[in-house]
Amino acid sequence: MIYFDHNASTPVRPEVQEEMGACLADLPANPSSLHREGQRARAALEKARGHVATLVGASADEVTFVSGGTEGDHAGLIGAALALEKRGRRVAISAIEHHAVHGAAHLLARLGFAVEHLRVGRDGMVDPRAAASLPPDTTVVAVMMANNETGVIQPVAEVAARAREAGLRTLCDAVQAAGKIPVDFEGLGVAYLVVSAHKLGGPKGVGALIVRHGAPFEPLFRGSAHEFGRRGGTENVPGIVGFGVAAELAAREVAAESQRLRRLRARFEAGVRAYFPGAIVHGERAPRLPNTVNASFPGARSDHLLMSLDARGVAVSAGAACASGAVEPSPVLSAMGVPRELAVCALRFSMGRTTSEHEVDEVIAALVESVKAARAMGKSGTGARA
Amino acid sequence: MIYFDHNASTPVRPEVQEEMGACLADLPANPSSLHREGQRARAALEKARGHVATLVGASADEVTFVSGGTEGDHAGLIGAALALEKRGRRVAISAIEHHAVHGAAHLLARLGFAVEHLRVGRDGMVDPRAAASLPPDTTVVAVMMANNETGVIQPVAEVAARAREAGLRTLCDAVQAAGKIPVDFEGLGVAYLVVSAHKLGGPKGVGALIVRHGAPFEPLFRGSAHEFGRRGGTENVPGIVGFGVAAELAAREVAAESQRLRRLRARFEAGVRAYFPGAIVHGERAPRLPNTVNASFPGARSDHLLMSLDARGVAVSAGAACASGAVEPSPVLSAMGVPRELAVCALRFSMGRTTSEHEVDEVIAALVESVKAARAMGKSGTGARA
Repeated sequence: MIYFDHNASTPVRPEVQEEMGACLADLPANPSSLHREGQRARAALEKARGHVATLVGASADEVTFVSGGTEGDHAGLIGAALALEKRGRRVAISAIEHHAVHGAAHLLARLGFAVEHLRVGRDGMVDPRAAASLPPDTTVVAVMMANNETGVIQPVAEVAARAREAGLRTLCDAVQAAGKIPVDFEGLGVAYLVVSAHKLGGPKGVGALIVRHGAPFEPLFRGSAHEFGRRGGTENVPGIVGFGVAAELAAREVAAESQRLRRLRARFEAGVRAYFPGAIVHGERAPRLPNTVNASFPGARSDHLLMSLDARGVAVSAGAACASGAVEPSPVLSAMGVPRELAVCALRFSMGRTTSEHEVDEVIAALVESVKAARAMGKSGTGARA
Repeated sequence: MIYFDHNASTPVRPEVQEEMGACLADLPANPSSLHREGQRARAALEKARGHVATLVGASADEVTFVSGGTEGDHAGLIGAALALEKRGRRVAISAIEHHAVHGAAHLLARLGFAVEHLRVGRDGMVDPRAAASLPPDTTVVAVMMANNETGVIQPVAEVAARAREAGLRTLCDAVQAAGKIPVDFEGLGVAYLVVSAHKLGGPKGVGALIVRHGAPFEPLFRGSAHEFGRRGGTENVPGIVGFGVAAELAAREVAAESQRLRRLRARFEAGVRAYFPGAIVHGERAPRLPNTVNASFPGARSDHLLMSLDARGVAVSAGAACASGAVEPSPVLSAMGVPRELAVCALRFSMGRTTSEHEVDEVIAALVESVKAARAMGKSGTGARA
């Protein structure tokens, strides 16, 4: 199996597995317990916190461990909006945010907040000027660091600067960026940042919400005084320890790995252009994550293509959400103005640490066969309704 | 080290460690991915769901995986309250609920809901009749299955029956009960139930919220269609797989293990009575978890006693919350009418699968020395302010 779906989840690194195994076996206690066993678990937790802080350029005490990107986005957006409620009951999110940010905004709307959406251009980028012209009762703006579907990198520092001038706080979902490109919380100038372990070689089920010193915040989960009072609940010690190891490795390797992935992407895109002159790479001219290619192969519906590649041992994601046989165009591509008939033919190829040149060539070869097969399926009406 | 703090967290079982290790190594994909790698992860997830359902007597599709008890309590209480908001904006919780339920109620209060508290008697039990006489705009009542500090088992089925008659839904935090006594979601007649893996031999960072078929519910975390639309976010596959193994073992062993722990508790309490005629076991006459003893040793402050036991290699929890050197009586004991001077002398001893008769005897011996030392510390004014 050739795994080209690293943006969905990337394999857990062996060093992470090993450390998590040791932790599961040797740290039975609750890190909130005051006895020595508890304090040993606490020490492991705080070591991991330091590694995560280093990876994103934050202070350790700004790091709040959460259960993943989805909780981080919810706790961040809702925690900021509630804390700033007296200033206004309106938040803004970019149109291409992850489902989790849309979900958090949905809950805020349910609670009576107004939600603005920042449009993106055809290149998939948010215009930073949009953050300067929001209604005056807006308190938080959410713009992701890199889009999970297209890989397009957003002008977060510019958005945050404009937002600050307008008196707004910025939340940045850096889930897809961290580990692939350098992330600098301090330099970005955002108030809140979210990262997830399983996108960078750590385990699923753990992430971090970074809250800047002094940034207004109300916890979503209350309990005892866990995580500086920002998140109740017994800490996921083995998961956090694994996250720490993955973050330490990622911080050390991100510059070189980023270059390596960029070369692989160039090789992949050259193959796509050579064999499919009609293919469209979405966000091609924007700055993008070095590992992500989102491309439409006209006439080859993404669900057919995904199945056909899977049968040839290649794992990718559809750029379109497929449910009950109906193919809906991705809201991200729709927001970029990609026409429906092209959007339903989009696939996301995402490479990672295990990807080799040989695999890139194999995927191109499999694509040549699969696009042919998918186009035939589409013509014969095989498969689900479009 | 003799570990008598199993209610805080209990060691991960070797079978769980092994299965989690295999999962970390062999299931890299996201279970939402449609390709074969994704479907392999999905299959592991669904197998675990079946085991958790069996443990608590629920259907698999009533099981929602969450990040632990704290999220389960928040998602359950808030999710139910929001879904029932049109009927009323009031919830009720027992006075002795876990911090997490109090936290969820706090957030609801923050959102404009009214919160009632059900009192408990001197034995630490909620009176089921209280659920029948709540204000008519109350929609949900939360009563835990067994208290985490005293182990006192609550009359949840009776509360739920009275609540149903009054048109209310019941949420039951069964975090401390599951794995120690049988839990029967169907038989309890509650609408929502919460369990946590790390209290029953699984890993930290994973739990389940059981939502009865047809029970009103709004998700706290939205995202894609994860967990039957009840909880967004990539599932914590290794944690959930570990939870499944622990649940399978617990379901098989709970009857015998419960008996074994009951004998150990009797031995422990006989020792306490023999050496400390003035000691008070809180909730002694109520039905209690077979593994939990919460006792006050008059004149021996719990923080002093905890330190002294720790120095002798015995790990326990204070029944009182210690922060910054000040000892505050536990709200649970206060709700039971335990006077302050006794409450600040309470310790929680909680046994588990690794506990032996020999350990029980060792703890009694260590207690004899430690109570003496703690009483001396108290008299000399050593340690923190009371």
